[in-house]
Amino acid sequence: MNAPADTATAVITDMGQRARAAAAVLAATPTAQKAQALRAAAEAIRADADAILAANAVDVAAGESNGLSGAMLDRLKLDPKRLEGIVAAVENVAGLPDPVGQIIDQSVAPSGLKLSRVRVPLGVVGIIYESRPNVTVDAGALCLMSGNAAILRGGSEAIHSSRALHAALVRGIAAAGLPEDAIQLVQQTDRALVGAMLKAQGLIDIIIPRGGKTLVARVQDEARVPVLAHLDGICHTYVDAAADPEKARSIAVNAKLRRTGVCGAMETLLIDRAFADPKPILSALIDAGCEVRGTAEVLALEPRAVAAADADWDTEYLDSIVSVAIVDGVAGALAHIAAHSSHHTDAIITEDATTAEHFLNAVDSAIVMWNASTQFADGGEFGLGAEIGIATGRLHARGPVALEGLTTYKWQVRGTGQVRP
Amino acid sequence: MNAPADTATAVITDMGQRARAAAAVLAATPTAQKAQALRAAAEAIRADADAILAANAVDVAAGESNGLSGAMLDRLKLDPKRLEGIVAAVENVAGLPDPVGQIIDQSVAPSGLKLSRVRVPLGVVGIIYESRPNVTVDAGALCLMSGNAAILRGGSEAIHSSRALHAALVRGIAAAGLPEDAIQLVQQTDRALVGAMLKAQGLIDIIIPRGGKTLVARVQDEARVPVLAHLDGICHTYVDAAADPEKARSIAVNAKLRRTGVCGAMETLLIDRAFADPKPILSALIDAGCEVRGTAEVLALEPRAVAAADADWDTEYLDSIVSVAIVDGVAGALAHIAAHSSHHTDAIITEDATTAEHFLNAVDSAIVMWNASTQFADGGEFGLGAEIGIATGRLHARGPVALEGLTTYKWQVRGTGQVRP
Repeated sequence: MNAPADTATAVITDMGQRARAAAAVLAATPTAQKAQALRAAAEAIRADADAILAANAVDVAAGESNGLSGAMLDRLKLDPKRLEGIVAAVENVAGLPDPVGQIIDQSVAPSGLKLSRVRVPLGVVGIIYESRPNVTVDAGALCLMSGNAAILRGGSEAIHSSRALHAALVRGIAAAGLPEDAIQLVQQTDRALVGAMLKAQGLIDIIIPRGGKTLVARVQDEARVPVLAHLDGICHTYVDAAADPEKARSIAVNAKLRRTGVCGAMETLLIDRAFADPKPILSALIDAGCEVRGTAEVLALEPRAVAAADADWDTEYLDSIVSVAIVDGVAGALAHIAAHSSHHTDAIITEDATTAEHFLNAVDSAIVMWNASTQFADGGEFGLGAEIGIATGRLHARGPVALEGLTTYKWQVRGTGQVRP
Repeated sequence: MNAPADTATAVITDMGQRARAAAAVLAATPTAQKAQALRAAAEAIRADADAILAANAVDVAAGESNGLSGAMLDRLKLDPKRLEGIVAAVENVAGLPDPVGQIIDQSVAPSGLKLSRVRVPLGVVGIIYESRPNVTVDAGALCLMSGNAAILRGGSEAIHSSRALHAALVRGIAAAGLPEDAIQLVQQTDRALVGAMLKAQGLIDIIIPRGGKTLVARVQDEARVPVLAHLDGICHTYVDAAADPEKARSIAVNAKLRRTGVCGAMETLLIDRAFADPKPILSALIDAGCEVRGTAEVLALEPRAVAAADADWDTEYLDSIVSVAIVDGVAGALAHIAAHSSHHTDAIITEDATTAEHFLNAVDSAIVMWNASTQFADGGEFGLGAEIGIATGRLHARGPVALEGLTTYKWQVRGTGQVRP
């Protein structure tokens, strides 16, 4: 009898081999056929709506009796409107420009060889996620449109929902003549399957974890397959002396409070000591229901603030809490950001273009903003159409990752019989 | 007393922190100053030539008494001509276009935000290599020109040579006002230092191993830091029915025998069953001193060939040996390549453009060639000016990697006070 890890490896090896065969087909599939497959998948999900919602109700009931938190139950729960949102997202992906086959650059070498770098799919993408059933569809659609086969492993809390969504998705793509193995769902909820995916070098080309810090950290720690990860979003907004006070106030409130649970939410507000009127910003945050944790200087400005501890400067609250420090100009802000940023998104508010350009160049983050809310850190807002995640690492892709981030390139070399001297 | 691993971690942590500080300076250093630093480094190496050659003689003598192979001793050995080659390579890098600051693309989002993707350095690059002392200088120069700090760990066989070269390099860059910590050499030869580099997440952004398969495999297996690796080069040349016989012969001989020890050397020759005259190709290879290992059909064509075993189709000989199979047209070639290629470089020889384009699209390798010798797989030949290696993975960079491959990008977002609805 096999040990569980061996069984898991056998399951993933089989899925990986089928995925690789499907990936070879997808790599050569024309854009129109991929789009048609996604539109058929969207229709199949619509047609299966009752079955999908019933499967989801099973997951929700189990989650309630297992004591899932309200936030997790909310992420898990589908209703007709949310399901239509999922379907609309698939149709949106079907209309995006196809990166596969794009020529990145071309040149002629001294030998006369003609060189082209051409975008090609990554191959087989493994997605490991938690309780959001929509990831099954979103990630599957983005992988398919970029010519990649996908192996999806969702959380056990959403397994019935994921299975129902996956069945519809696959029926649609098969109807368009694409291989069913193009999008596979790990049916087993055993955690050993995740371990097997993380070690499937040669079968899975990249792992994209989508979920909380614990999941991402486990994946990064165990994976032998390359990982495109989204870790912390400790985002800063720096209000410069030359900031427009009204812009500063409205941007700070929006950056913190529009949605507090997203990675692009501001977690720390830095205010230039030379900024004329910081109090209205602090008061507006507190009036809007935000807890302000500040230094002694901040407490002196706004008595409703509370004292910040050292740990606050390194905390991603994902809640209605903000840490606030007074800094000495842009240099002070840059020093604070260099020490505490998670290199996700940081912003400057100023009317001084020279200061702004200095900040945009000096801050070493995936996204650096001038006079805008950090909540814009999003593939949709960036015009990418959709995103598979926001990469906080430095390799391959950085910031919002969409179809292009799911491709690599190859060099095509056209000669006339050249031999190398 | 610390255990060796703790000591190694402490050494690498200290070097990593200093490298990160230097990287912040380099990221903002203008092109002209980086070029000036490299030119000063080249001059410093010239000025230290006697000391460098004396240090190298110590390594070579130790290598001889330790029984290093002739090939390893040859890689280790410096002479005035080779040293001038190293210096010229540094001066060449100083003249290359600087990728840092290049704008990859720009757009305006519906919100009015102006988005730019701008190239920035990766940060801190760790290079782990073996006995070639020139890597100390080549890799250091490429990292510096691309705005990255480098932590170099060379093989113990070349430690005196590497130290002498590194001392000159650092004197040159310091003379140009750049931090000495921009290029650091691990002074200890203890292998625990390699382990500590591989686990230095947050301090080292990428590890590039340069050396044989054993080194690269160890690095890939142990690393927690992302790795840009060059593994096997099992390169194929397919001679199609529509090949020009003379091109096929000259390209096959060049691809195999120009230099047999390079990763771009052809290891397997595939000949279309419909190709009219395969014998002259086989005979030319054998006449030039190559061992031909073939299937029964090959032996029937050229009695001087020997029988190939199954393992031959998956072997990177790096020697005057070639495996040869007869295949059924381009489909047969594609099937063989899909089963046995290491996804490095594969070529087709044909006068039929349609067949060639099919091959160029269908072969899933970093480099795919038409009517050219696989020996052209080289950053210099591709006009990249220099290369830090040829990446056989699929992420970040693929094929020859030069300055651009040592960069990533950030998103700069310029607004006018936008808040997200």
